[in-house]
Amino acid sequence: MRVRKNVAAMAPYVPGEQPAPGSKVIKLNTNENPYPPSPKVVEAIRAEVGESGDRLRLYSDPKALALRQAASDVYGFPIEQVLHGNGSDELLAMVIRAFVDEGDTIAYPYPTYVLYETLAHAQGAKIATFDFPPDFALPSGILSCNARVVFLASPNSPSGTVYTSEQLRAVAKSLKDGVLVIDEAYVEFADSNNLALAKELDNVIVLRTFSKSHSLAGMRLGLLFASRKIVDELWKVKDSYNLDRLAIVAGAASLRDTAWLAENTRRVKVTRARLVKGLETLGLKVVPSQSNFVFARAANAQLASGAYQFLKDRGILIRYFRQRLLDDGIRVSVGTDAETDALLSALKEYFAGGPKA
Amino acid sequence: MRVRKNVAAMAPYVPGEQPAPGSKVIKLNTNENPYPPSPKVVEAIRAEVGESGDRLRLYSDPKALALRQAASDVYGFPIEQVLHGNGSDELLAMVIRAFVDEGDTIAYPYPTYVLYETLAHAQGAKIATFDFPPDFALPSGILSCNARVVFLASPNSPSGTVYTSEQLRAVAKSLKDGVLVIDEAYVEFADSNNLALAKELDNVIVLRTFSKSHSLAGMRLGLLFASRKIVDELWKVKDSYNLDRLAIVAGAASLRDTAWLAENTRRVKVTRARLVKGLETLGLKVVPSQSNFVFARAANAQLASGAYQFLKDRGILIRYFRQRLLDDGIRVSVGTDAETDALLSALKEYFAGGPKA
Repeated sequence: MRVRKNVAAMAPYVPGEQPAPGSKVIKLNTNENPYPPSPKVVEAIRAEVGESGDRLRLYSDPKALALRQAASDVYGFPIEQVLHGNGSDELLAMVIRAFVDEGDTIAYPYPTYVLYETLAHAQGAKIATFDFPPDFALPSGILSCNARVVFLASPNSPSGTVYTSEQLRAVAKSLKDGVLVIDEAYVEFADSNNLALAKELDNVIVLRTFSKSHSLAGMRLGLLFASRKIVDELWKVKDSYNLDRLAIVAGAASLRDTAWLAENTRRVKVTRARLVKGLETLGLKVVPSQSNFVFARAANAQLASGAYQFLKDRGILIRYFRQRLLDDGIRVSVGTDAETDALLSALKEYFAGGPKA
Repeated sequence: MRVRKNVAAMAPYVPGEQPAPGSKVIKLNTNENPYPPSPKVVEAIRAEVGESGDRLRLYSDPKALALRQAASDVYGFPIEQVLHGNGSDELLAMVIRAFVDEGDTIAYPYPTYVLYETLAHAQGAKIATFDFPPDFALPSGILSCNARVVFLASPNSPSGTVYTSEQLRAVAKSLKDGVLVIDEAYVEFADSNNLALAKELDNVIVLRTFSKSHSLAGMRLGLLFASRKIVDELWKVKDSYNLDRLAIVAGAASLRDTAWLAENTRRVKVTRARLVKGLETLGLKVVPSQSNFVFARAANAQLASGAYQFLKDRGILIRYFRQRLLDDGIRVSVGTDAETDALLSALKEYFAGGPKA
């Protein structure tokens, strides 16, 4: 058989580093939340499963009304402008499928979330990337790229930095017939968000995920907010039953437990401050983060990659990016206080060991 | 913004008919299973959720090893040739994304599962359809269509009819560089299956779903079996975390409970025989079904659509297709014995009411 050229040219799939089940690894490499989800989530799943699981034999709601109504209520957004995804990853793929033809251009800064590139290749799209300056400020080239879709993660990964609403508005307005996707996967850990821009401008999409602040990475839930014009087109390319019954009730319950969310993000931000202070004390340069992870630069790439390996040998997983603009740093997720202390103590040992280069 | 032409041309999304939650409707319109899933499924979900839901904060396994290993063990298929989907719907979409460029041709008989058409439009593909003869035998045009992807549902919906392995092998061999997808969503209710063809031929894909025989439509689970060559390409276009943690454990538990599956399908087939007999007694012509639904023709379209409405008014939902080649019939899912009796008794009343035209 014949495979599409753009797909054949893609590198084989390599899943990320996952510790073996049951291992005692401290996992600070994929920005998961260190705390369990809201107790309301567990209650809602148990109720939907019931004694016999009888409801599971029936199809889930293709409109995911329970979830979208909760989002509409909590965020004050018309339900017609809210769409649900099997993780925000699925919503990213849907945006490309609706708005990007083969050969069209997708633009984003470098470095950012790697999935944008994978999805662009899968669609046979051209890619325009714009290098970040060292402080991860918006690359000016984005303002004149006029792409069909621009992806801006705010907070960005792996930097943890944000764009201002003014910058994002300017990008959206610079696009002649393109769409700006503001990927707010980490926004609950930031000082502000840009949901209002999705109400204000017809060509702005805001994405949210339950994987970080809601402690539900394992349930695969994302939300999209945009104009009616955009959302109506996305329905056409959505798998009808893209969320299962348990994901829908879990997401709705988590959204409505706003007090739990506030406390969960507060805790993470307190520990983030402790982590930043600890890393700076060790001489690392920490990029100011508005997320549940921090990017910290060492004096050079050898020191940084050495730190990654040193920690790994001691059962602590973090991220090291062996690539341009990032290879002198490490990305560390904010864990519990105990996990953070263990990390800082191991790093102290590493840096106390003398020159590493 | 500018929407892709093929997407803009698609009809707005209209979800299927769903009874209001809590209503006492007898639901025989979407081929769900009337019995709850295996008790092992409920156990597995409860165990994964645990007391606090703590595991839900961690990403699900992108490789879904627990599920694919169960499939490999139960079906005697190498795990490298098994892929998991968020329902078989997602797997269908992945096949098109990997093998169909804009303008390429997708072929299938008419009438069949409507999603093939939707997915073809979403990809900007050309469509070649071939009308079934009245007995739903394989249209000979399929054997010379030489499309990039051919979809053959076996059993087919809404007919419930199957193709022979010889016919399917001939179709696969007739394709110069195309792929044959054998959609076996309903195969557990049939007398035989074609999994062996996915081992024998490099360009054959067999799809399975948990929505019918496994009583898990609400959990969104599908499996794909094909050559290593095909599966390796599909990994590249798969959402990494396409299944959530609860779906993975539910699917694995259901697969391994083979005794439950045998009993669950046996019961449905016994009731199917009773349903067929009852419909024939009322004068309907029933297409021989190897599925968990039957297609039964009335004397004319008015009688058939009248039956649909008569049943709906009495709280019994079935499917009526207001379209070419199908408008003189009704499709009825096999429910419990009590549901089937209620259906037959209402239909008896309808047909006893004298001429309907």
